[in-house]
Amino acid sequence: MIATSFRARHLSIVGLGLMGGSLALALRDHADHITGIDSCEAARSYGLRGGFVDCATDDLFAGVNHADVVILAAPVRVIVEMLKMRIGSYLRSNTLVVDIGSTKQDIVDAMADLPVGVNAMGGHPMTGKENGGIEESDRALYANRPFVLCPSRRTTPAARLRAISLVESLGAIAIEMEAERHDQIVAGISHLPYLLSATLVATVANQADSDSAYWELAAGGFRDTSRLAASDVTMMGDILSTNTKAVATLLAQFRMQLAMLETMLIGGDEQRLSQSLQPIRRARKEWADNYEKGR
Amino acid sequence: MIATSFRARHLSIVGLGLMGGSLALALRDHADHITGIDSCEAARSYGLRGGFVDCATDDLFAGVNHADVVILAAPVRVIVEMLKMRIGSYLRSNTLVVDIGSTKQDIVDAMADLPVGVNAMGGHPMTGKENGGIEESDRALYANRPFVLCPSRRTTPAARLRAISLVESLGAIAIEMEAERHDQIVAGISHLPYLLSATLVATVANQADSDSAYWELAAGGFRDTSRLAASDVTMMGDILSTNTKAVATLLAQFRMQLAMLETMLIGGDEQRLSQSLQPIRRARKEWADNYEKGR
Repeated sequence: MIATSFRARHLSIVGLGLMGGSLALALRDHADHITGIDSCEAARSYGLRGGFVDCATDDLFAGVNHADVVILAAPVRVIVEMLKMRIGSYLRSNTLVVDIGSTKQDIVDAMADLPVGVNAMGGHPMTGKENGGIEESDRALYANRPFVLCPSRRTTPAARLRAISLVESLGAIAIEMEAERHDQIVAGISHLPYLLSATLVATVANQADSDSAYWELAAGGFRDTSRLAASDVTMMGDILSTNTKAVATLLAQFRMQLAMLETMLIGGDEQRLSQSLQPIRRARKEWADNYEKGR
Repeated sequence: MIATSFRARHLSIVGLGLMGGSLALALRDHADHITGIDSCEAARSYGLRGGFVDCATDDLFAGVNHADVVILAAPVRVIVEMLKMRIGSYLRSNTLVVDIGSTKQDIVDAMADLPVGVNAMGGHPMTGKENGGIEESDRALYANRPFVLCPSRRTTPAARLRAISLVESLGAIAIEMEAERHDQIVAGISHLPYLLSATLVATVANQADSDSAYWELAAGGFRDTSRLAASDVTMMGDILSTNTKAVATLLAQFRMQLAMLETMLIGGDEQRLSQSLQPIRRARKEWADNYEKGR
């Protein structure tokens, strides 16, 4: 992918958490001026003191109206709200808006209604950390990780190239796809795993109500499988609620697969069970080997 | 728990893999003589060369007939087979037999048929490593980890105390319970997580057949939730097949819990969804804090 080096005259980052803070650090040398916008005073003053941003405000409209690049680093429905408010009319012509929300269809749909002249592309970096907050920021958070870009009706060819160069300046790997496809994929690799993890914990907690030895004996395997259940509930609620259809489709497929394995198990058909589990094991090992290599 | 320090005159360990090898290392100073029994020549010579054992043989009966303590470190059904063979008639009176199989009911049932005079207690240490084999042995593998002990019809009061002192000499935490209760607990904290992990990978692999971007975008959350799917299939088949009833019961409860969350999600009942997910998150965090503290 060939894209010129990314430069912004005035970059505005809406949302100074882990993701927005890390963006500010990584783009520091690519922007003449960075404005941070957040309703939380502590995040703003942390960002100012740490030199993440040159100025900080809680006023969305004042914060974006001189920008030539705006990054929306907020929960999905907050991003959609912002796009549906009058934000478009505060943006200068030719401004590039990119978001980093975890689901994309609702966002690119809302981008379509921005005024002509404002450019916008949906984005989703496949990175993060267990704990959030601007204090956790890391300028290398995006490096070598996929960064999905989803076109909207406001993605001009020039805007597309500029978004790609933004992503590449983070050291991330730009992967372009339609929002619908993105949302189906994250339903499988992220939202379904979260629901399984939470449901596993609910099932064990239910048993543990009458026998605390469940908690005493749980070890490494339970720790790994249950880790996603500790995710922020508000964030996950936002994500799941904006991807209900894809998640429900995947859940139906999951149930079918589970029923097949269970049938073999209960039927004592150990040979078929083993024949089903072997390719699963191989697929997981192959993926994990590649994943660890890429990190 | 008060138990005298563990001593064996002649300890025989059947199965020189990760678990058996680590036992040999940890019990080195508690036994005058250790015999290792394994059908694999490479494991035997590794154990001999490394000083894990004083002698090694592939002959089960010759290997155990001078022992005053025998530890069976093999897959569940191999242990059951050994107990059902004439092994009892080769054991000296007052010998203590302890196993470390992953499910306990079938094993303590088989122990019940050992000759009177042979003492036997079921055991299950809640520890392990991602990779097996005697080369992976670690004398601290059992330290500070729960080691479940399940009584059989051949557990005399003296045998019980001796088994507890064996466990404590490993630095492990002895937890006594009936085999049935043990098997229900591990169904929840270990076998259900494995099945979910494998079924998740099967579901994603199915999708990835027509779109490889599933694998490209999968990241840390998928890695954790899918880790158990890489477990040894033969070992898991052995475990699941000896705990079918408890696993099926837990699967039914899992499905109910999942259906409740899905109903709220599809119905757009975000408040109830959040009210259900919050206590799950708290339960997981509380457990994980305690678990990490105990390690």
